[in-house]
Amino acid sequence: MQGFFQLISSQELLLLLERFRPLTPESVPLRMGLHRILARDITAPEPLPPFARSTMDGFAVRARDTFGCSESEPAILKAAGEIAMGTSGQATVLKSGQACMIWTGGELPAGADAVVMVEFTTQLDGRTIEIFRPVAPGENVIRVGEDYAQSSVVLPKGRRMRPQDLGVLAGLGIGDVPVFKRPTVAIISTGDELVEIDQPLTPGTIRDINSTTLAALVEECGGVPVSLGITGDDPDSLHQACAKALDLPADLVLISGGSSVGRKDFTLKVLEKLENTELLAHGVSIRPGKPTILARRDNVALFGLPGHVGSAIVVFHLFVRPLLRRFMGMTSDSGLERIKAVTTEQVPSAIGREEYVRVSIKRGGDSAPNLATPIYGKSGLLHPLVKADGLLVIGRDVEGLDKNEHCEVLLFP
Amino acid sequence: MQGFFQLISSQELLLLLERFRPLTPESVPLRMGLHRILARDITAPEPLPPFARSTMDGFAVRARDTFGCSESEPAILKAAGEIAMGTSGQATVLKSGQACMIWTGGELPAGADAVVMVEFTTQLDGRTIEIFRPVAPGENVIRVGEDYAQSSVVLPKGRRMRPQDLGVLAGLGIGDVPVFKRPTVAIISTGDELVEIDQPLTPGTIRDINSTTLAALVEECGGVPVSLGITGDDPDSLHQACAKALDLPADLVLISGGSSVGRKDFTLKVLEKLENTELLAHGVSIRPGKPTILARRDNVALFGLPGHVGSAIVVFHLFVRPLLRRFMGMTSDSGLERIKAVTTEQVPSAIGREEYVRVSIKRGGDSAPNLATPIYGKSGLLHPLVKADGLLVIGRDVEGLDKNEHCEVLLFP
Repeated sequence: MQGFFQLISSQELLLLLERFRPLTPESVPLRMGLHRILARDITAPEPLPPFARSTMDGFAVRARDTFGCSESEPAILKAAGEIAMGTSGQATVLKSGQACMIWTGGELPAGADAVVMVEFTTQLDGRTIEIFRPVAPGENVIRVGEDYAQSSVVLPKGRRMRPQDLGVLAGLGIGDVPVFKRPTVAIISTGDELVEIDQPLTPGTIRDINSTTLAALVEECGGVPVSLGITGDDPDSLHQACAKALDLPADLVLISGGSSVGRKDFTLKVLEKLENTELLAHGVSIRPGKPTILARRDNVALFGLPGHVGSAIVVFHLFVRPLLRRFMGMTSDSGLERIKAVTTEQVPSAIGREEYVRVSIKRGGDSAPNLATPIYGKSGLLHPLVKADGLLVIGRDVEGLDKNEHCEVLLFP
Repeated sequence: MQGFFQLISSQELLLLLERFRPLTPESVPLRMGLHRILARDITAPEPLPPFARSTMDGFAVRARDTFGCSESEPAILKAAGEIAMGTSGQATVLKSGQACMIWTGGELPAGADAVVMVEFTTQLDGRTIEIFRPVAPGENVIRVGEDYAQSSVVLPKGRRMRPQDLGVLAGLGIGDVPVFKRPTVAIISTGDELVEIDQPLTPGTIRDINSTTLAALVEECGGVPVSLGITGDDPDSLHQACAKALDLPADLVLISGGSSVGRKDFTLKVLEKLENTELLAHGVSIRPGKPTILARRDNVALFGLPGHVGSAIVVFHLFVRPLLRRFMGMTSDSGLERIKAVTTEQVPSAIGREEYVRVSIKRGGDSAPNLATPIYGKSGLLHPLVKADGLLVIGRDVEGLDKNEHCEVLLFP
């Protein structure tokens, strides 16, 4: 029997991912920008706000005209009209001793440096305003560029944009944003026993579970999945499917099934024969997920994943997610949340390989720890995955965990 | 000056959301099902797997034929051919003393009850197999329906579907899934000073920030935003915009700006005059976010939000998110992650209202606490929101927090 290429550790495989470069940037409309990653620093093309604004309904004044006033001794100012919303405040010049009606968000008149809230004023007649509380210069006013000065960096390269970030860009009139491309991920399922979801089952056949699962994992991570369907267990069909994937062009190709060393496992052979393709890894000392293949064709990654869906999911989270994130200009880790927990029972493991055990998590309270309970099941089964909240990590130099032992769990997204 | 309808607490407003019903279910293709919420229990229309499968490459046997064998005294079995992948295993009948070649995922022949891994066998010639390790009945085999028995509940109503959940449905041939509809959310920005992002600024005008921000918040939560653009500060335009929103039909209408009690605030008046519309709340004792309006027209919710984007975001997270989640069949809370933290400086607050202070979070290590640092800034500013990781919650009966005090923070998604 043919052996594995060379078993490497998960850390070594992660280092190999550094041979891939982030994808080229593209420009997308602002409304499509949520959760996309900025491909360069964004600077303010103009100051925000573009003019000095009132933050209250009230009267624009020269602050010194209100100094010393009080409920019993109000300042008496002359009414100088009103700044209508959306019109130029600076067209009005406020002289000493005057007060000008203004609304929240309105532009301050020239000469004014503060706003008195309407609650602390009385309009005596059409011409006179009483002010009952003094204001300091700048009070209830946002200065020109106080939020973002012109040319200042608003959002840095690598930022994953949140709703408020998009709001700032809208405020600055930036209608298109430069972001890293979302990776196109071709998905190929291999196996003579597989049929499409909507096809009838014949004896000995089973529906393709991996294509749907992997497409959703890719989507969840921000990639664009393209399912290329099912390929039989023969090298020619798989070669054709790979060629089709590269023609898309895909940034990443996921081939599930056939990645091990059996007589019916053709992924390695097909990748070895693919033109200009370098085999980077075959076999990782983790469980599940040992039969993992990684190859590189310029900046395109081709992964051979185990056929068992539970194993394929583990390999996806550990290695495919970090590469997708790297392609999108993010840090090259899985991005999965890691939490501390305590085991509720013994968890056996063998020395010499990392183990990823599906667990359910019961969240602890204020001082109580999170509890991790392993969910066992043969590797071909789905229900342990459906019940699990994440993966308990057991290091390669650890011979299992005792009950009540502290551990670390990678949470499913 | 007209007063608030009646100030209520945030808890009271959340209770009012219970008057709204989850939206009607719809059917979507499985590939569109990621993160959607199931509108009913899904049961297995057929057993999964549909036949007894081998989990290994090896030889299907009757387990008792291997009992007692060892490296030194192998069991000698007669070769009984091979089960090709995707063909009926049950068409072959394995007799006592026979072994039949089988591949991972292949259907067991009739009469076989276990599989010996190929590593523990030697094929002596075309007719004889040596077995070096005994197997127990059921070993390396997944039984018919071992994952999901026919008619068993696979996924419960209310489940937010993850990639592995979609995989199970694919395995069961379920190509369409019943899910709660995604709420359609109409977004209206009000203000005479506002211009669209792509329009030139004239003196006294500013670009509409709220539409972009609220649309992204809706999208992030799973809703479908429909921006209806900018409405001037007059009741007729706002009434027309509301009518347009209800015609969409929208499940939820967000009107930002004009929700307070000033002379230019028309949202309340417009909602009061809207046919068949009941005003549920005007004014919530929180800061920021006091000028919040909630109205109901059958199962459609209309929210008046503060015009300041920072305040609008707080109201969105506290009240709009819970309602969107309720519409989608989820629990009626914000769904935001709450973490414990310790303040790095004093945080003042007034008794009698809940306060939500923007903070940046420095994550603690193994035993170190998370650190929350307030990011102050006038309510019209965006940069404190861009810098913030979440909202520090100060209860209504608390007069601020000291430095190094324990607190709770709602993390932005």
